[in-house]
Amino acid sequence: MSDSVPDIVIGRLPLYLRALARLEQDGVPITSSHELGAQLGISSAQIRKDLSHFGEFGKQGTGYQVPYLREQLARILCVDRDWTVAVIGAGHLGRALAGYKGFGPRGFHVDVIFDNDPDIIGTQIGGLVVKPGESMVEELRARRIEIAMIAVPAAAAQSVTDRVVAGGVRAILNYAPIRLVVPDYVHVQDIDPVIHLQHMTYYLRT
Amino acid sequence: MSDSVPDIVIGRLPLYLRALARLEQDGVPITSSHELGAQLGISSAQIRKDLSHFGEFGKQGTGYQVPYLREQLARILCVDRDWTVAVIGAGHLGRALAGYKGFGPRGFHVDVIFDNDPDIIGTQIGGLVVKPGESMVEELRARRIEIAMIAVPAAAAQSVTDRVVAGGVRAILNYAPIRLVVPDYVHVQDIDPVIHLQHMTYYLRT
Repeated sequence: MSDSVPDIVIGRLPLYLRALARLEQDGVPITSSHELGAQLGISSAQIRKDLSHFGEFGKQGTGYQVPYLREQLARILCVDRDWTVAVIGAGHLGRALAGYKGFGPRGFHVDVIFDNDPDIIGTQIGGLVVKPGESMVEELRARRIEIAMIAVPAAAAQSVTDRVVAGGVRAILNYAPIRLVVPDYVHVQDIDPVIHLQHMTYYLRT
Repeated sequence: MSDSVPDIVIGRLPLYLRALARLEQDGVPITSSHELGAQLGISSAQIRKDLSHFGEFGKQGTGYQVPYLREQLARILCVDRDWTVAVIGAGHLGRALAGYKGFGPRGFHVDVIFDNDPDIIGTQIGGLVVKPGESMVEELRARRIEIAMIAVPAAAAQSVTDRVVAGGVRAILNYAPIRLVVPDYVHVQDIDPVIHLQHMTYYLRT
């Protein structure tokens, strides 16, 4: 595994992993780069090239063993272990994230949720007691949280980000519609629904 | 503009559009495929190739006029007009979507929100009165809604999808962690935060 693998390739691996997990669920034992490609809208050549960065996962003409390739991708992406996550912001979005059923089965566990509103601090959300924002740095450090989801208004997002970084977080899923400034060693992914909407409007022209 | 442009290329255009809008906001008049590529983690050759599907947007060596290229991409993606959107589900996620400040400035307006809970129907969310799910097909048709955001539990997502399709919707932003079955002419994009989390965990291995 080399650190020189382009980030755009890394970004496609979770898509392959999801497709493989679905095939495995459906009881499909073997797949091909063509089948995966057709499902994902990615060329089979691209898939083979992406995977070749990490080794040899199938023989020419016989396809990929679904469970094996899924396990290997999970290992490469470091999701063969569980991760604990902090949710920052206990408004509607934060509550939705804390209650989202899609995280647990794929190895992400919301361990703590923060808010600044005195009316919300101390209340329970999905079995978690909402902690005050001012305790964020110590709480994150004590719990060794490495991933945070930022679900606060845009105006608060950068100051909250500075605190989660001070708390030792190295990966941020950002729901606020702004560009966060972080140190080089911190990874940020923006959840931007408009990107997905604009992808579809292309096809809606009449 | 040809319909044979690969979907994966279309999927990158909103990223280019967002980067250009940010450059324009920052007052940058001219950019290059290298600058865009560095910002997006996409090779400059890929960007030039993607854009070449749609015409000639800059001269070799002089770069792209930021406002001009932004306008052209907005036109290509059909976001040089406004779109009305329905939110299905008025739980925490639906409320967060109805109140999200990032849609309006980029041309997407939530026009109607539905729920099945008698306690929620008729209440106001962000200036909208929650409509009953049973009126969905007629309401969507009457309002000529073409885009729906599905924010209901996984178990309800497919039946809700069948109804938005019956209501004339041609594009669905799906927040439920399941694969929706739709007719060929309906476009679906899944918002899957785990895909983004797994992209980052790759870099967290120690």
